[in-house]
Amino acid sequence: MNVPKSNFSEWYNYVLEEAEILDIRYPVKGMPVYKPWGFKIMRRCFDLLEALLNSAGHDASYFPLLVPEEQFAKEGKHIKGFGSDVLWATHGGEQELERKLALRPTSETIMYPMFALWIRSHADLPLKVHQTVCVYRHETKATKPLIRGREVYWNEAHTVHANAEEAEMQVGEGVHIYKRFFDSLGVPTMILKRPEYDTFPGAAYSLAFDALMPDGKTLQVGTVHNLGDNFSKAYGIQYDDAHGEKKGVYQTCYGISMRCLAIVIAVHGDDKGLMLPSSVAPVQAVLVPIFFGKKEELLKKCEELRASLEAGGVRTKIDDEDVRPGEKYYYWDARGVPLHIEIGPRELDAGKVVLVSRDGRKKSVDEKDVLNEVKTMLEEQDKRLYERASKKLQASMKSAKSIDELKGIMNKEKGFVKIGWCEEEKCAEKVEVQGAAEIRGCEYNKREAMKCVACGKEGIAVWAAKAY
Amino acid sequence: MNVPKSNFSEWYNYVLEEAEILDIRYPVKGMPVYKPWGFKIMRRCFDLLEALLNSAGHDASYFPLLVPEEQFAKEGKHIKGFGSDVLWATHGGEQELERKLALRPTSETIMYPMFALWIRSHADLPLKVHQTVCVYRHETKATKPLIRGREVYWNEAHTVHANAEEAEMQVGEGVHIYKRFFDSLGVPTMILKRPEYDTFPGAAYSLAFDALMPDGKTLQVGTVHNLGDNFSKAYGIQYDDAHGEKKGVYQTCYGISMRCLAIVIAVHGDDKGLMLPSSVAPVQAVLVPIFFGKKEELLKKCEELRASLEAGGVRTKIDDEDVRPGEKYYYWDARGVPLHIEIGPRELDAGKVVLVSRDGRKKSVDEKDVLNEVKTMLEEQDKRLYERASKKLQASMKSAKSIDELKGIMNKEKGFVKIGWCEEEKCAEKVEVQGAAEIRGCEYNKREAMKCVACGKEGIAVWAAKAY
Repeated sequence: MNVPKSNFSEWYNYVLEEAEILDIRYPVKGMPVYKPWGFKIMRRCFDLLEALLNSAGHDASYFPLLVPEEQFAKEGKHIKGFGSDVLWATHGGEQELERKLALRPTSETIMYPMFALWIRSHADLPLKVHQTVCVYRHETKATKPLIRGREVYWNEAHTVHANAEEAEMQVGEGVHIYKRFFDSLGVPTMILKRPEYDTFPGAAYSLAFDALMPDGKTLQVGTVHNLGDNFSKAYGIQYDDAHGEKKGVYQTCYGISMRCLAIVIAVHGDDKGLMLPSSVAPVQAVLVPIFFGKKEELLKKCEELRASLEAGGVRTKIDDEDVRPGEKYYYWDARGVPLHIEIGPRELDAGKVVLVSRDGRKKSVDEKDVLNEVKTMLEEQDKRLYERASKKLQASMKSAKSIDELKGIMNKEKGFVKIGWCEEEKCAEKVEVQGAAEIRGCEYNKREAMKCVACGKEGIAVWAAKAY
Repeated sequence: MNVPKSNFSEWYNYVLEEAEILDIRYPVKGMPVYKPWGFKIMRRCFDLLEALLNSAGHDASYFPLLVPEEQFAKEGKHIKGFGSDVLWATHGGEQELERKLALRPTSETIMYPMFALWIRSHADLPLKVHQTVCVYRHETKATKPLIRGREVYWNEAHTVHANAEEAEMQVGEGVHIYKRFFDSLGVPTMILKRPEYDTFPGAAYSLAFDALMPDGKTLQVGTVHNLGDNFSKAYGIQYDDAHGEKKGVYQTCYGISMRCLAIVIAVHGDDKGLMLPSSVAPVQAVLVPIFFGKKEELLKKCEELRASLEAGGVRTKIDDEDVRPGEKYYYWDARGVPLHIEIGPRELDAGKVVLVSRDGRKKSVDEKDVLNEVKTMLEEQDKRLYERASKKLQASMKSAKSIDELKGIMNKEKGFVKIGWCEEEKCAEKVEVQGAAEIRGCEYNKREAMKCVACGKEGIAVWAAKAY
């Protein structure tokens, strides 16, 4: 690669292009094209997420893109929260539509009127569905590929419960699923309860997963909302309890977007380009035959190895292009493939191959042990990726007793800074203006007393950071 | 079920509801909600299709939903062909957008400007991508769930080639893939070359897969288009050949929509409801314990059997609800599950289970043989489904020497009727008005001389049918 990761912003854009993740030249702002390599990685991320949701009893489904205006407006805070960001379809051909249709910015207003039809009795609860779709937000802020765009590829889950306690427990399950998901990507996260003013429009409260970017800023990579009964009241979702009485329901929703791809790229990549955890690598091992004679025999051996690795569950590719091995390594390293397997005439004669991990570990192994050795090497590298990222996150965590101290950190290395806050919005504004950091919230299920850095009154410990 | 299949139209809507395929009560015309069971079947269909495309070298990708107006208008016939059907997004919040954005009715106008950027030399060809997305068509005709809607869930493949011959060969590959796909659904099809006036807007010619519906009408379930160089000229897609000369490219595209789910439902279902080929059944076998005492032992045995069936690749579910077995059979039969496995105290003692296929074959087998017997029974039933459907299609194929004869058939059993046609549009109109049938085209790669039923001149054999 030509751009070092220390120059993160330029590196990021360079990697998106060089590793063929995206093409940002599509002529609608904030709507890039996902190229095959990028899309494959992203789909693997969502396959993992969907499998976790399915096995926890969420059912995949599909709801329409378009929301009639009156249906969209039913939950007051929600429509206000999205207002100017909503894209509207107004015409079919030259004809004006009878009523405007919103392109979903998220699907509460689409799903919940249907939930009102579906839910009759206690037996219909809990209802847990999810869908992977694009949502649309007419962002006026600067867009950034995979981070802030007008077309957001994501998975959203929505659940309905008989009472507030069950909804509260569901929030816990959502958090647990998301935690496992980011773990499987090797990405450590902070789970924070957002301040009230930063809650999802219409929610009772919002939890968010924040990850550390290489420049010390934080990226929100997932959210879990307890919706309470705000939406169910607005959309009339009720059920008959055991005594035949009508009762209102309680809801949750949670979502993870294409930012999961952004964070994988940002956290794991290095000066050579992308570095993918094996869980989401479209190709986990590349076989590179080194041709000094014996070409046919080498290719035959590669094909044998490929077949046995694939049968053992390792996604494997042979790179038999007629270019120098160095070029091949460069190519696959830039695309983040976790492992390459070299085999030349010498290895062929000795019944050996050389395994080289993307982060530079090298090992000569017996041909008959290849499958196990490859699996072990992938696992070990995955572990190193996660540990390296965790150490970075830990190292970024500081605390500050004053706004000045906070500002000092934010002007240098940034990261997550623990401060006290009285939970008043005007103090949060002070922190933001004078301390150059946003209050991201307190840790999930953890309230610790700490004096407010802005007003000095009693408060709680929260994490502040500079957000993307 | 309460509606016999002989009353097809009512049966179809009833099955969609009863088997929880769709909810058509969503308040935008032509945009139903896919319920979990329906969505799972549909996703299995598309998983099969995507796997076939991938293994033939098509890369999954994702292109944006929205097309700027000027980009949409570049290929003259194409925009004219879609004109009044296009939905337009015109506002972000209250603000009018700088330029109107079309919701893709199909993605040529989105992909091809990007292909013009991507393709430089012969080495970049062929380019083969596909994507599974929704497309939007502001249908003014009556909508019908999964058959004609305003939100069309589909997979579209697009390919680019160095010359016309390669594009022509690619059409062959597309046809081959689609044929395999419909075979795997147990759905026999006719592959017909559409008349010129019925060609996809902008294409050189169009092939289509037509399937027979239970009411004798035909449903177009897939199309393969040779685009020639119409689009590449409009979008300036060129490459440098071996001599450094700029050359234009030739393209193809092909698509299959959620109609693949409609046809599976329509072709295989019976008076009991859905009947699914095992390839797309979300659950392939349901274990039904018959509780006359020994409940715990029976459940333990079911769990054992489930685990071994799942390990053997059979999607298996235990139905341990506290209702009568008959109710369970009714429930799972209506949802199309291919097989149920009964096990009561008598079977438990004898080390046996009873397998019952959805189409009524029954067999008592040794517990240790369950996996093999289940697989065999699923295969055999799949074969019977396909054979039954093929026989129906064959039986529906007639021929007519005059428009009157054609009309006679169309007024009764319908089906596919072979007629002669001179290839003039006005004779096709006569056939449609007087013969009550559309000309669907001649068989793929087959031109047979036959006198036109409308004007008596020399012509070719084509198939006419009443189309959905």
